[in-house]
Amino acid sequence: MASYPSRVKIIDVGPRDGLQNEKQPVPAAVKVELVQRLQAAGLKEIEVTSFVSPKWVPQMADNAQVLHGIERQAGVRYSVLTPNMKGLEAALAAPRAEWPDEIVVFGAASEAFSQKNINCSIAESIERFAPVVEAARAQGIAVRGAMSCTVGCPYEGEIAPEKVGYLAGLMKGIGVQRVDVADTIGVGTPLKVQRAIEATQAHFDIAEISGHFHDTYGQALSNTLAALGMGVWNFQSSVAGLGGCPYAKGATGNVATEDVVYLLQGMGIDTGIDLDALIDAGVYISQALGREPHSRVSKAIRIKRAG
Amino acid sequence: MASYPSRVKIIDVGPRDGLQNEKQPVPAAVKVELVQRLQAAGLKEIEVTSFVSPKWVPQMADNAQVLHGIERQAGVRYSVLTPNMKGLEAALAAPRAEWPDEIVVFGAASEAFSQKNINCSIAESIERFAPVVEAARAQGIAVRGAMSCTVGCPYEGEIAPEKVGYLAGLMKGIGVQRVDVADTIGVGTPLKVQRAIEATQAHFDIAEISGHFHDTYGQALSNTLAALGMGVWNFQSSVAGLGGCPYAKGATGNVATEDVVYLLQGMGIDTGIDLDALIDAGVYISQALGREPHSRVSKAIRIKRAG
Repeated sequence: MASYPSRVKIIDVGPRDGLQNEKQPVPAAVKVELVQRLQAAGLKEIEVTSFVSPKWVPQMADNAQVLHGIERQAGVRYSVLTPNMKGLEAALAAPRAEWPDEIVVFGAASEAFSQKNINCSIAESIERFAPVVEAARAQGIAVRGAMSCTVGCPYEGEIAPEKVGYLAGLMKGIGVQRVDVADTIGVGTPLKVQRAIEATQAHFDIAEISGHFHDTYGQALSNTLAALGMGVWNFQSSVAGLGGCPYAKGATGNVATEDVVYLLQGMGIDTGIDLDALIDAGVYISQALGREPHSRVSKAIRIKRAG
Repeated sequence: MASYPSRVKIIDVGPRDGLQNEKQPVPAAVKVELVQRLQAAGLKEIEVTSFVSPKWVPQMADNAQVLHGIERQAGVRYSVLTPNMKGLEAALAAPRAEWPDEIVVFGAASEAFSQKNINCSIAESIERFAPVVEAARAQGIAVRGAMSCTVGCPYEGEIAPEKVGYLAGLMKGIGVQRVDVADTIGVGTPLKVQRAIEATQAHFDIAEISGHFHDTYGQALSNTLAALGMGVWNFQSSVAGLGGCPYAKGATGNVATEDVVYLLQGMGIDTGIDLDALIDAGVYISQALGREPHSRVSKAIRIKRAG
C-alpha cells in the first residue's frame, strides 16, 4: 500500500477563487468575517482576494477593504492574486504589516484557455508575470503560481503532461517558488492527475506543489488520495465548495474543504483544522449567499447534529 | 504507484438496494424497464429485487412480477435478496429459466445493527442463513453474502476489522461464495476500508470480494480507489445514486454507478459500460421518482449535453 504524508496543509481559496465565481455579491465585512472564521477553525493559509481590475472581476472590487480589514493571526499566510504590476502596487499600497504574505500569478497549461481567460499566449503571460514576481520577491513576498487546466481544458479537451511541464518550467524560470496543479474543470481522474504532478516535479520539489481539484465530476477526493500517495501535502480547497463551475453552470466547482478535511482526518493525517468550526464557517458564508453548503460532509454532519 | 486491475465488474444494486430505500413507490413495469436499460448499457450483474415479507419492505412486494418480467440477456447475472427459506422458495416458484442466478443473504459486522435490522445476533443470523445457502447451492444457484456496517455503524460507531473478519469467517463457514464489504453509512475513508478488506481476505480471495461504498460523506470514490489499489475488481453501486441514506434522512446513500464508471474509464480500466446509456437509464428512473439523479457525473454531462 502507498505511504501517505503524516500532515497536510490546506490553503482555503474560498474567499477569492470561491467568491469570485459566485453570482450573489457579498459585502466586504462578510468576507473579512469569513477569513477570520477560517483562521479560527485552524486554516494556516487563506487566499483572501484579488487585485485585478473591477471592470473584469467586480466581485473583488473591495480587495483593499478585505485585505486590510482582517485581524491577522500569527502563523497564518494571507495570499492575494496579482495578475500584473498595477495589481501588485495596489496590494502593497498600505503599511508593511498589511501586505499580503504571498502573491499569486495565474497561468494556464492550455493555450486556448490562456487566450480566452487572460487574452494572451502562455509565453506572453509569463513575460507579463516576470516583473511582478521579481518586484514581489525583492520585497520579501513569496510567490505562488497557479497552473490552471493541467488535466483538461474547456476549449482544448485533454491536456498532455508535457504542456504542464512546459508551464511549470516557465514559472520556475521567472522565480515562482511554488505551484498549484489545478484541475480547473474537474474532469481529472487519479492517473491523469498523477501524470500532471509528475511533469511538474521536473521543476519543483514535492513540497512546492499543491493539488487543486474540482469536484464537478465528483472525482476531487480520489484525485486527492492519488496525489497524497505521491507525497503531495499541500492542497487547495474552498469552504462550502464556494465557487461553482463557471464552465458548467449549475455544476459543482472547487472541492469543499470540509470534504478534504474529513478524508484526511479519517486517514489519521494531521491538518490542524477543527472540522466542526469549519462546517460552521461554511454555513455562515452559505447563508450570506442564500444557499446550502456544497459539501456532503457538511450536510451529513448537520443532519446528524439535528439528530 | 499502486497497480490497478485492468477490468472491473460493476453490480448495479439500484433496482433492489436503491429502490427499497426510496419513498416514492415505482410500478413493477418501471423496475423491469430499469433493469433492461441497465443491461442494455452494459451492466453484467444486477440486483433486481428482494424476496422479503411485504410487511417489512412494501417497496419489494412486486418481487415476482419484476424478476419474471425481465427479458433476460445472455451473460447477465440477476441476483435477489432472500433473507430466509420462505424467501428462497418464493424466488424459485417459477420455471428454472426464471430463477435468479444468485441469491444474497444480508448480514452485519455490528451486533447492534444486526439486532435492530434483522432482530437477531450475528451468530443467529448465520444459523438462519445456513439452510438457505445450502438449499440454493444444492440447486446450482450462486450465493453472495452482504456484509453491512464493515467500517461504521449508526448504533455502535466505528467497527473494528476483527468484527469484519469474524463475520466473513462465519459466511465462509456456511458456504457463501463471495462477499460484499459494505460501508453502509458512508463514514469510511481509504485506510479504514482497506483494513476491512484485509480482514475479509483471511477468508475470501480478492476475486470473491466486492466493495460497496456509500457517498454520504463524499468518500465513496476515494474508497473505491483504495480498494482498486488492493486488487479488488468487483464493485457495487446504484444508478442515479438510488437509495439515499436511511440513517441520515436527506443525505446521499449508495454511490452513483455513473460516478464509479467515470472514475474507472478515466483510469483506463475496462468496465464494458456505455456511460451515456447509463446516464439515460439514471434519468429514466429519476423521472419516475420525481427527482434529479444523485450523480455529479450525470449532472456535469447533462449540462454539457445541453451545451
